[in-house]
Amino acid sequence: MKRPITIALDAMGGDFGPQVVVPAALDYLKRDPEVALILVGREESIRQYLPGSGGGDRLGVRAASQEVAMDELPSRALRGKKDSSLRVAIDLVKSGDADACVSAGNTGALMAIARFVLKTLPHVDRPAIMTAIPSLRGHTHMLDLGANIDCAAEHLFQFAVMGSEMASAVDGTARPSIGLLNIGQEEIKGNEQVKKAHDLLSASDLNYFGYVEGDDIYKGSVDVVVCDGFVGNVALKSSEGVAKLLSHALRQEFQRNWWAKLAGLISLPVLRGFRRAFDPRRYNGAGLLGLRGIVVKSHGGADVLAFENAIGIAKKSIRTDVQNRIARQVAAHLEKRATA
Amino acid sequence: MKRPITIALDAMGGDFGPQVVVPAALDYLKRDPEVALILVGREESIRQYLPGSGGGDRLGVRAASQEVAMDELPSRALRGKKDSSLRVAIDLVKSGDADACVSAGNTGALMAIARFVLKTLPHVDRPAIMTAIPSLRGHTHMLDLGANIDCAAEHLFQFAVMGSEMASAVDGTARPSIGLLNIGQEEIKGNEQVKKAHDLLSASDLNYFGYVEGDDIYKGSVDVVVCDGFVGNVALKSSEGVAKLLSHALRQEFQRNWWAKLAGLISLPVLRGFRRAFDPRRYNGAGLLGLRGIVVKSHGGADVLAFENAIGIAKKSIRTDVQNRIARQVAAHLEKRATA
Repeated sequence: MKRPITIALDAMGGDFGPQVVVPAALDYLKRDPEVALILVGREESIRQYLPGSGGGDRLGVRAASQEVAMDELPSRALRGKKDSSLRVAIDLVKSGDADACVSAGNTGALMAIARFVLKTLPHVDRPAIMTAIPSLRGHTHMLDLGANIDCAAEHLFQFAVMGSEMASAVDGTARPSIGLLNIGQEEIKGNEQVKKAHDLLSASDLNYFGYVEGDDIYKGSVDVVVCDGFVGNVALKSSEGVAKLLSHALRQEFQRNWWAKLAGLISLPVLRGFRRAFDPRRYNGAGLLGLRGIVVKSHGGADVLAFENAIGIAKKSIRTDVQNRIARQVAAHLEKRATA
Repeated sequence: MKRPITIALDAMGGDFGPQVVVPAALDYLKRDPEVALILVGREESIRQYLPGSGGGDRLGVRAASQEVAMDELPSRALRGKKDSSLRVAIDLVKSGDADACVSAGNTGALMAIARFVLKTLPHVDRPAIMTAIPSLRGHTHMLDLGANIDCAAEHLFQFAVMGSEMASAVDGTARPSIGLLNIGQEEIKGNEQVKKAHDLLSASDLNYFGYVEGDDIYKGSVDVVVCDGFVGNVALKSSEGVAKLLSHALRQEFQRNWWAKLAGLISLPVLRGFRRAFDPRRYNGAGLLGLRGIVVKSHGGADVLAFENAIGIAKKSIRTDVQNRIARQVAAHLEKRATA
């Protein structure tokens, strides 16, 4: 009998560890009968959150004696924590015992260890981190979000290929449109890397839209926005900052006087609907693309619902065979360029 | 008799030209008895928006026969439009007939022409664009916002010195705190330029806070956030995008059904207060720092209120003698470093 789709979960990662990961696993299994999960970490910590019955035959526990701290140096975690929950979860993907893994742990360590254990796909120079972001038209995918700081044009091009495949896999879009993040001033437009990546993308048969600017991420002008990891990280964090500032101010405004408080009470269902629409938990789960295996990063502060969403992204990536699609596409684009 | 503080206004710049600039000038003069304004542009277009009486003895008109288009190449505007309203407004600063100028025109052309006509301050390698952004603690100043794409550490350091002086001048803070924009991943933290700028700033006697991330802009963790123009532009545009997305969604949510509409009606004063607090018009006006003269850029789409705000920033910059303060500080920091 073929084993079910299996996802390894780093049960110790993130700000809350098994307190969030174990309930998320139990919840997720109830909703998805096709998947089996393996909780990786300290057994006694994990069992604490499991019901007496264990959690069913689709929930396994795999012991790992160490943990990677959220602020631990990636190189140190890589060398010194060979039995960490994060490492063992990735090892399970490498050995084929799991089809993917999900971790809310230290991003730098996750990337470094995943890269070391799984290796990058053929022709992929650098893995990238990609996530979906809410937009006026639904959502926009964006990469890289911080794995790569200085990117050459070729790297940006590869991100575009990987992003296109991932967006296509996740959304079922045949040819996702790709935008290259730039700034709007003509003449001084873009640095050398961006300009060169623009030429590479224009010459490719990707569905390349052209340059986009920061606000296009939220307008939903394209399906996938490509940028280097420094810019992507700053854009994402800035956006989070604005969203927090505005929601804080809105709450304050509805507290200002008795009329405002009354209005707030009456508006409660409306404001809840608003909050639901942009609930960051629904967007939790960033794919580490370009590796020989599926690795999904959950936000460190993820709660149960958010972590379940990240498991869902891992499942979708497995189902759509995204890393093999990426491997084929990167190779095909290289070949086309070589024969052009 | 000493002439009053005089500000030249590019009356033809921006999406609306004299239709916005002339009423803004008339309004501004009513509120500020210390200032005289010179409207620069096509006389017949300007007069169309002036009252029959002219506008008083503190309002002059200076003819300019050309206009720089919003999408015109800066180099072309520089060479070919020597009698444009934008150029003549800057010429008035150069000749000393005006103490500052304000334009809602083409940013690239404004920067190129200002740099050509006024020149940079001694020891300043590159001018930068700086604006204030609302934050949880009031506002945060940020630079560069798009004038410089690839910045060496020394440029980032100079931005910090200029930003510190401008923030101090505008807000009256003695030693504004400075943050260097970076991403949070340890080890791969920052590119080479940012790391080197960090060392320069740490060794200086600026009130240097250290690295900040994108969300710190809106938390108000520091008074001034320093970054290169590519990153700054993307951060600003992304933030604008999120703010628009959220306000659009909030409006929609209050339209969803009759209850939501009723709640919206009752919440109208609250929502208006909210909108007022983040009214981008109140933040309009970006300083071009590092030039031998004061130049303020207004948003191209600015309305009357927004343009008046930009005039106010020019006035404040004149009053606090900001460009001479910048010149002194940049020289002092260089000297200190040389003798260290």
